[in-house]
Amino acid sequence: MAPLSLRTWLTGAPPNGRDVAGACAVVVDVLRATSTVAAALGHGAACVIPRADVDEAFAARAELEGGGEEPLLGGERGGFKVPGFDLGNSPLEYDAERVAGRPVVLCTSNGTAALERCRGGSRVYAAAFVNAGATAAAVARGAEPVVLCCAGKEGAPSLEDVCCAGLLAASLLKVYPYEADDATTMALLCWRNYEADVPRLLRTCNHGRYLAGLGFEKDLEFCSRVDVLPVAAAQRDGEKLVAVAQG
Amino acid sequence: MAPLSLRTWLTGAPPNGRDVAGACAVVVDVLRATSTVAAALGHGAACVIPRADVDEAFAARAELEGGGEEPLLGGERGGFKVPGFDLGNSPLEYDAERVAGRPVVLCTSNGTAALERCRGGSRVYAAAFVNAGATAAAVARGAEPVVLCCAGKEGAPSLEDVCCAGLLAASLLKVYPYEADDATTMALLCWRNYEADVPRLLRTCNHGRYLAGLGFEKDLEFCSRVDVLPVAAAQRDGEKLVAVAQG
Repeated sequence: MAPLSLRTWLTGAPPNGRDVAGACAVVVDVLRATSTVAAALGHGAACVIPRADVDEAFAARAELEGGGEEPLLGGERGGFKVPGFDLGNSPLEYDAERVAGRPVVLCTSNGTAALERCRGGSRVYAAAFVNAGATAAAVARGAEPVVLCCAGKEGAPSLEDVCCAGLLAASLLKVYPYEADDATTMALLCWRNYEADVPRLLRTCNHGRYLAGLGFEKDLEFCSRVDVLPVAAAQRDGEKLVAVAQG
Repeated sequence: MAPLSLRTWLTGAPPNGRDVAGACAVVVDVLRATSTVAAALGHGAACVIPRADVDEAFAARAELEGGGEEPLLGGERGGFKVPGFDLGNSPLEYDAERVAGRPVVLCTSNGTAALERCRGGSRVYAAAFVNAGATAAAVARGAEPVVLCCAGKEGAPSLEDVCCAGLLAASLLKVYPYEADDATTMALLCWRNYEADVPRLLRTCNHGRYLAGLGFEKDLEFCSRVDVLPVAAAQRDGEKLVAVAQG
């Protein structure tokens, strides 16, 4: 039997005519959507509901409030909190005091759209450096092909997402001889160049420099901490992400 | 003044809403379209006319014949010569005896489509390992932003194209401090990993293994020879590629 495939989408979009059907999809948006998802779930949020569209995000919060819950609505446009949202897209805002026990609706520019594109996967995870180990462990429990979906930025690839995909690929290849595509090989090569210094990666990459220019240096520092959060963020019911503790 | 940008399209297609207008575009399809373009022009072909569509390629040959020329029609589908074409897509077929003084119409699966997408660049080149040095020298004579367009395969990135883009980027960055995007950084990292052994790269990458399986090992060997052809392939009149000798 041929080994299972391990593919990487460098820009968040599938190559022509391919999709995630039958595959375990792992969405990566290190700066900052999936780091924020991991922070929220790692600090006890009940779930994270990704919404790509701002109006749909407001509607999701309203629906939760109507059901008697106490949701938080977070996210960004251009890096900054959207007016009317409760929180921005800084993972540091998602501490236990704020999020424990509450559902979080998250609306960001690239990561939540990538999560929506991957909704049809047999399993779907949101991963970043902070929870890469827990995610790889959860993924490797299954026996499907794997797609690593790098969110990127406005259709272009982001170095930090590709490096994180490389870390995930390296972890997965330690436990199973997946057949890797060329894009996964590229991700592995990029990861090898930065694995000794992830903070340098996040200061170097285009979006990291953009965020530093907006004053988000502390977010970069947080997002560079490999495996500080022992939770995988797994999709349930085709929509919300919930914490799966590292087993 | 901000430095000129150096961008890389890893899959042959522009990120959302971007194009090559105002930029010098370099199309890379190492296996094998742009290696074949370089071989044809390096061996004295009058020009190479890229056509993505098979029917349009036949029509282009007929038009040239009607004008009293002696064109050659070459290219592939699935790696093999198209029935009715004069030649396949092996650069080894494009020797001086066959091609000297003749126009060549070339129709391949990915490279010619990438050339068509880049037609609107201020200048357009077709590059491979065999003529990377001549191409970088020609590109660096201008003063525009640069886009390195990796043809890839069916919408997915090809490692060999991305590595060749990395070689071109490394050469360009030696002569001008371009501002590189993340994708160019990825290409540079991939190139660094393989620069000591390009034949190994072409044996390793997915499309190289596919071609080896079809019996094209000698093509891989030829396509791995860095800078053996001292000609850049430059677009003229928005369509045909002609040789520009290394100055």
